[in-house]
Amino acid sequence: MEIDNDPAYQQMINGELYMESPILQQRRRAVRTKIMQYNQIADSTERNTKMKSLLRSVGDRFFVEPTFEFSYGVNITIGDHFYANHGVTICDEGLVKIGNDCKFGPKVGLYTPQHPLDPAVRRTEAERTAPITIGNDVWIGGSAIILPGVTLGNNVIVGAGAVVTHSFPDNVIVVGNPARVLKENKPAD
Amino acid sequence: MEIDNDPAYQQMINGELYMESPILQQRRRAVRTKIMQYNQIADSTERNTKMKSLLRSVGDRFFVEPTFEFSYGVNITIGDHFYANHGVTICDEGLVKIGNDCKFGPKVGLYTPQHPLDPAVRRTEAERTAPITIGNDVWIGGSAIILPGVTLGNNVIVGAGAVVTHSFPDNVIVVGNPARVLKENKPAD
Amino acid sequence: MEIDNDPAYQQMINGELYMESPILQQRRRAVRTKIMQYNQIADSTERNTKMKSLLRSVGDRFFVEPTFEFSYGVNITIGDHFYANHGVTICDEGLVKIGNDCKFGPKVGLYTPQHPLDPAVRRTEAERTAPITIGNDVWIGGSAIILPGVTLGNNVIVGAGAVVTHSFPDNVIVVGNPARVLKENKPAD
Repeated sequence: MEIDNDPAYQQMINGELYMESPILQQRRRAVRTKIMQYNQIADSTERNTKMKSLLRSVGDRFFVEPTFEFSYGVNITIGDHFYANHGVTICDEGLVKIGNDCKFGPKVGLYTPQHPLDPAVRRTEAERTAPITIGNDVWIGGSAIILPGVTLGNNVIVGAGAVVTHSFPDNVIVVGNPARVLKENKPAD
Repeated sequence: MEIDNDPAYQQMINGELYMESPILQQRRRAVRTKIMQYNQIADSTERNTKMKSLLRSVGDRFFVEPTFEFSYGVNITIGDHFYANHGVTICDEGLVKIGNDCKFGPKVGLYTPQHPLDPAVRRTEAERTAPITIGNDVWIGGSAIILPGVTLGNNVIVGAGAVVTHSFPDNVIVVGNPARVLKENKPAD
Repeated sequence: MEIDNDPAYQQMINGELYMESPILQQRRRAVRTKIMQYNQIADSTERNTKMKSLLRSVGDRFFVEPTFEFSYGVNITIGDHFYANHGVTICDEGLVKIGNDCKFGPKVGLYTPQHPLDPAVRRTEAERTAPITIGNDVWIGGSAIILPGVTLGNNVIVGAGAVVTHSFPDNVIVVGNPARVLKENKPAD
């Protein structure tokens, strides 16, 4: 895609401090307008087909309830068999990779942007990102959020309302704010 | 209603492992489309009258701000004098019973579905539910969520942002993630 | 504005127990209808210009992603250079004052209403409010909420998913439910 050659885009996905370039701004505007339209399409097949077309790469069996919102779309990669309930928001300033067979409850948020801590820098709109990586068979409960830089292994279950501030390995159930392991959850043999 | 005779529907509301049947799927599709339409009706009387018509049973004085979202509607029973602020979501795969004189803040979520813990089973889309029962005079603060199987007594106040993972008796104020009793709150004589 | 002379409005913003008057009700209805319309305007300049017109006072460089929701608008004062991501809700029954250079993540909520604790009073719809005051250079992370009566100083960073139940001074990062200071964050010299 053309955006891949934009230096600001490369800084953005590489976690460097960046300013939104004209190419990034144009992409964001176009995506905003299209998301608004697509979220109002009653036919689910049409809505999901169009929504998919805004993402970098999506496997088979993609279904999101309206509204589904994101920033650029080009940083979202999703495997096969994805389901998101109403009101999911993915801030994909940074790279977001989601595996196969994942389910997101309503109001889930994946947030990759990190505004600078120094207010003088923050005021300039300069921003950094950190990627979010979600394994296979991950179920994120309703209203839970995933913060920048988090990697979740396979078969992680995130309890509803959890705030996931750091990474977790395979086969755990995590809950709370900040999220901690509630228990292991090995797959049955 | 026809849906009441569907074996999958009966499994669903009885907390058994179930797969969505054609009848359930048809109902869900119809509800999704209608909710999208109704949430865009500017006239509040018309919007709320139509929204009510999708629920199992609702008393007098029902007012929900847009958007108000749910899954099937047939599993939601609400008493008299209900108010929900913007962005409330009720996942009524399981039975949801709400008493009289209840108020829900913005972005409140009532979530009854429980996906299986074993990833191989979860992948099949088989699901269980547990009911949510809310007493009279319950006020649920903004962005709070209620999890499957929870019963709240009369005059329970749920603090904004609370994550309610288990049941509470009458006359308490609960806060936090997970929610715990902050203090008793007996009605004045 | 005419509403300023309404006794119920004055009670409302002064933290007294009040009942919604016809003037307040009329304002709320008009705002609800306009917000629904404005949140569907694809052109960001037009959408934000119209949204601004519903607020008491807003400085330069105001940008909110759709949807942006509030109750009356007349109680919201915002400084220069404001950005709110998707799905921000401000319940401005009470006064909400936001400084310059503030950024709100997606699904942030500012909630000023306080329903009475006694259920018999709560049933009457009588309500109180407490103001929310946000300093300059405040960044509120995604899905965080600010409760009635909270004042945040300048350069406060509220972590994503935090539930802010009391006030904090300048230059701190706060996280958790309830929010507590994670660390100081003095500006660079």
